[in-house]
Amino acid sequence: MSSDISGYIKNKIHYLNVRIYYEDTDFTSVVYHANYLKFSERGRSDFLRLVGINHSELITQEDAGFFVVLNMYSEFLQSSKIDDILSVKSSFTSLSGARLNMRQDILKDNKVIFKAITEFAFLKKNGKPRKVPDNIINKIEPYLF
Amino acid sequence: MSSDISGYIKNKIHYLNVRIYYEDTDFTSVVYHANYLKFSERGRSDFLRLVGINHSELITQEDAGFFVVLNMYSEFLQSSKIDDILSVKSSFTSLSGARLNMRQDILKDNKVIFKAITEFAFLKKNGKPRKVPDNIINKIEPYLF
Amino acid sequence: MSSDISGYIKNKIHYLNVRIYYEDTDFTSVVYHANYLKFSERGRSDFLRLVGINHSELITQEDAGFFVVLNMYSEFLQSSKIDDILSVKSSFTSLSGARLNMRQDILKDNKVIFKAITEFAFLKKNGKPRKVPDNIINKIEPYLF
Amino acid sequence: MSSDISGYIKNKIHYLNVRIYYEDTDFTSVVYHANYLKFSERGRSDFLRLVGINHSELITQEDAGFFVVLNMYSEFLQSSKIDDILSVKSSFTSLSGARLNMRQDILKDNKVIFKAITEFAFLKKNGKPRKVPDNIINKIEPYLF
Repeated sequence: MSSDISGYIKNKIHYLNVRIYYEDTDFTSVVYHANYLKFSERGRSDFLRLVGINHSELITQEDAGFFVVLNMYSEFLQSSKIDDILSVKSSFTSLSGARLNMRQDILKDNKVIFKAITEFAFLKKNGKPRKVPDNIINKIEPYLF
Repeated sequence: MSSDISGYIKNKIHYLNVRIYYEDTDFTSVVYHANYLKFSERGRSDFLRLVGINHSELITQEDAGFFVVLNMYSEFLQSSKIDDILSVKSSFTSLSGARLNMRQDILKDNKVIFKAITEFAFLKKNGKPRKVPDNIINKIEPYLF
Repeated sequence: MSSDISGYIKNKIHYLNVRIYYEDTDFTSVVYHANYLKFSERGRSDFLRLVGINHSELITQEDAGFFVVLNMYSEFLQSSKIDDILSVKSSFTSLSGARLNMRQDILKDNKVIFKAITEFAFLKKNGKPRKVPDNIINKIEPYLF
Repeated sequence: MSSDISGYIKNKIHYLNVRIYYEDTDFTSVVYHANYLKFSERGRSDFLRLVGINHSELITQEDAGFFVVLNMYSEFLQSSKIDDILSVKSSFTSLSGARLNMRQDILKDNKVIFKAITEFAFLKKNGKPRKVPDNIINKIEPYLF
């Protein structure tokens, strides 16, 4: 099974494959619930990367800032196990002012096993919210649903 | 600052102190968002422990089972940093059939910085949901809000 | 940059690319030291996978067993950061009785930034060491240095 | 079982109790090996805290710096499980120039299950090694073995 390490975008949706390792599981023999948030964050980071927004650049440029999670609704529909390959699907659902909204689904064998609806704020380095800069808006907008 | 390692219960609410270490932070210098779910899980585990329900017993007894997270709504209100001590407040809000509901707040300096509303299902070892066993209901019920 | 999700083997050495995400960093802005052990474990798991040994099979087959880490010597030579892609190089250095030895290097931009020499024991499900089963020896032996 | 959240020092040795939660275990039903490095780091951080050295101060003061792990030899002697309480014992074995050395043991039921010998360097914010500042030497020296 081959895949680009940063995933790929198709019809405005970003796809990233994630392998389940020892570190992801717990003693109940399935993946620890909080780790689906990590997989979702990996998907988002790679989506942003592919549209031209790198974390390492965001914090070193003059206009430095971060997206932070404001709130999240998540459903844990089925479990996954060691050796599984999951597919993280990410899409931008809205962007306005200092707010970005995303929908993410994690699939195993083409069945959704986790989904999350997440709202982000863009913060300046000092922790204060600010309007998302235009150069970032311009990169995300073509992928908005 | 002294605290029992399993926290304590007061007015049906469980309190657990959690220290922020290197492992909990990320390069933006604050705690990584998914780690608040870990802290919440620690609080729940210790609440169950103090009312007499241990994970290690649950899985070895004949009637073996687990609580798993079904869905969660979470808000990330403020950040926290290395060396901080957070207080995880947990309460049971309802219990019926195979479902348990909890409300959790994480506080820093007496201000809520994270909150989560979580629904759990009780599963048999084979992954099928089942009615929460009576011996577990009896231990949780005195703490229901 | 394209890569098979399980890495690849060349001249008896296994190579796996690992991306650095938020979850891997800490407040000092570099990767948290213990996470290099996770990356090493991912490399080992995928090396075993490519030679035909899956964790999920190991524990369900009659002869069920695990490799566990007995001891490890590790050097942390340089740091790495968010967005970096690291290359995990793994090789088997010896295999006899219940013991397996490995050498692993993690590289960034073709420079070794972490190395580990690790000894493993093969344990039965009850935690007792046992000779590595022949079907596993046969799969590893062609890759021994 | 009661314990100060930062542990305590007795005869130059620092002791910290650590509870095993879901997040610490893996599908083999025991604690994931890399997590013993996390527990060791928690012990070290609290030892430094109790002698008057806080991470949050280290990085904000003019003379800003960090201790980073240079190399580590670790032995994994026995496993531990969900609900266990482990005791992390930490001691400073030498301090000179830019180098600090520590010995750490993790115990379960008074038996050593993990040990690590670790060498640290003191780095300036720019990543260059520097002599450990006098105010830090003065705080550690009384606890040297």
